[in-house]
Parts: sequence; C-alpha cells; structure tokens
Amino acid sequence: MSSSRRGHRERLVYETAQQLRRAGVTGTGLRRVVSDAGAPRGSLQHYFPGGKDQLVGEALQWSGTWAAARVMHHVDRMRRPTPSRLFAAIVDEWAADLDARDFSRGCPVAASVIDCADTNDTVRRAADAALETWRRPITEALVEMGRPRRRAERLSTLMLCALEGALVVARARRDTTPLGLVARELAPVLDA
Amino acid sequence: MSSSRRGHRERLVYETAQQLRRAGVTGTGLRRVVSDAGAPRGSLQHYFPGGKDQLVGEALQWSGTWAAARVMHHVDRMRRPTPSRLFAAIVDEWAADLDARDFSRGCPVAASVIDCADTNDTVRRAADAALETWRRPITEALVEMGRPRRRAERLSTLMLCALEGALVVARARRDTTPLGLVARELAPVLDA
Repeated sequence: MSSSRRGHRERLVYETAQQLRRAGVTGTGLRRVVSDAGAPRGSLQHYFPGGKDQLVGEALQWSGTWAAARVMHHVDRMRRPTPSRLFAAIVDEWAADLDARDFSRGCPVAASVIDCADTNDTVRRAADAALETWRRPITEALVEMGRPRRRAERLSTLMLCALEGALVVARARRDTTPLGLVARELAPVLDA
Repeated sequence: MSSSRRGHRERLVYETAQQLRRAGVTGTGLRRVVSDAGAPRGSLQHYFPGGKDQLVGEALQWSGTWAAARVMHHVDRMRRPTPSRLFAAIVDEWAADLDARDFSRGCPVAASVIDCADTNDTVRRAADAALETWRRPITEALVEMGRPRRRAERLSTLMLCALEGALVVARARRDTTPLGLVARELAPVLDA
C-alpha cells in the first residue's frame, strides 16, 4: 500500500470519528467524511467494503486506542500519580477540547451507543470494545498505584461513567463546570 | 380542543420522546411517530407548525417534567430520606427500565445533546432546560435534607452526570452493573 493510499484510509477513519463526535452515527454523512478527508470518490468502497458499519467500527476502534494512549501519556508525566490526579488529567483534557472547539465535539463512543444500542448491534459492540480499550490502561494504572484489581476495575468504570455524563451535561449547558465538578467530588472516593 | 384531539397531541409528544430514547434526534422519523401515536396523517402539521424542532422540544419538556415528577415520587415514599437513598431510587428505576426494555431506550435528553449540541441550538436549549427541570426537585430535596443550597446544587449536578454516563456505559455493555456501581460509590460523597 503506498504512503498516500494509507494516508487516505487513515484520514477517512479520523474524519468519521470527528463526525461521530459532532452529529452521532445517523447524522454522519459519508459524502462529508470523504470531502473532509480530502479523499477521492470511490475510496470509501475501496477501503471499506463493509460500508458505513465498517467505517464507524474502525473510527470507534481508533478512538478507543487514541483515548488509551492519552491515559498512558497522562500517567507517564505525573510525578506522584494518584487515581484522582489521573482522573483530573483526563477530565481537564476534555474540558480544554470543549472550550477550544466551542462544545461542538463530544465522545464518539457515547454518540454511537446512544444512536445504535437499539438499532445496530455491530456498532454497539464496536462502541463497547472501544470503551474497554480506553478503560484498560486506567485500570492498570490504578493497580500500579496500589489498588487491588477488583477495586481498580470498579474505579475505572466509575471514572468513565462520570466523565461521559459530565460531557453530556457540559455540552447541554455550554459550560465546562460539570467536568471540574465530577473530578473534584470523586477525588475522595478515588483516593480512599 | 376535544378530548380525542388532546389525546393525539399528547401521544405524538410521548412517542417522539420514546423515539429519541431509541434512536436519537436524527434517527427519529416523523412517520413512525405518527404511526406509533395512532394519529391521523396531517396531525403533525396541525399541532406542531414549528415542525420537528417544535415536536422534539416539547418531547424534551415532557421528559424533564416526567423525570422531575419521578424524583418527587421517590422523595415522598422515603421514610428517612438521604441523598444517597434518593440517588439509588432514581438509578434503580433506570436500571429496571433498561432490564425491562432490553437496553433499547436511554435518556432522551442525552440523545438530544449528543446529536444536536453542534447542529441545532433550538434542540440543545430544550435539552438544557429539560435537564434543569429534572435537576431542580433533586436540589430542593437535598436542601430539605439539610444540605446548604450551593452544596445541594453541586450534588444534584454530580448525580445527573453519574447517571447519564452510567446509562451510556450500561447500554454499551448490555449490563446494568455500572448503574448500581455509581450509586454505591457516590453514596459517601452524597451523604458526607
């Protein structure tokens, strides 16, 4: 595969993830994805013979992998890592993104669950897998910080629940306050 | 307005809310809403001259009012109300609904925020108003339970964030465990 071809494929996946963040699965139009990716017409059929489900599935996989890499980045740069500091770092990055993009983009995984949990089990499974890809390095970091594995599993789930909900409330209000609020209120539970 | 006419209007609003819960705003088809409501063709234009935005806005208003009424119901039937017991009652009702409906229906407000925060400010504002309608009786109940008003405001926001996110994670997994988890983990924060 040539470098420029690989570029098109990757850009199509990336732009699909961005459309999911803006408008959900049903609102993601493939023409706009192709146009935003600067890819030639016909490239979708070439790279994604499974159609929109395949493209959305790969966008969710990419999103989960990206989010997991960010978690590892946050862990690496913390001098004295604690669960509450890790959560605050994750939350702060989302708050900065909402601010920078005028609340236009949320979580592509949440959008896919909300649009597809009842209508498209392929996408629902891809969203579930992406959430687990994201949650795994959080759990491992908490184990490294001395939490028993079962406790770490519960706390990583708690973090993702609070973050996902705070993103919804923050975008409804156009105000990042709920993100800082969940980070501060959960700190004693996370560090107990 | 005759009783049967009022019935059609209310059923159209109710069925719109149910479609939002299943498929989001973009995925809510007006033909299906009319059909599920058992309403005559043309009734949408008659009752909702503002089109889909008006219908979705009224469905969100109805949903916020319904959720607020459920909060007051939970408060009324608690012998010794505490913040954590109120949160557990709200969460348990959602968990039972996910179980009963095979995870098919989530929160219509979250669906509207995720689909419309970047694309339709009319719907985004209606979702924000619905969240506030829902949150207000929670805040008031917490004040009744002795929390200072500013603290009650923070805790009611925390509850809705945790609940909304747990609904997303639970529907992704097809497992209600995350709902019980956030109720238990937040209890010490809510009752502190």
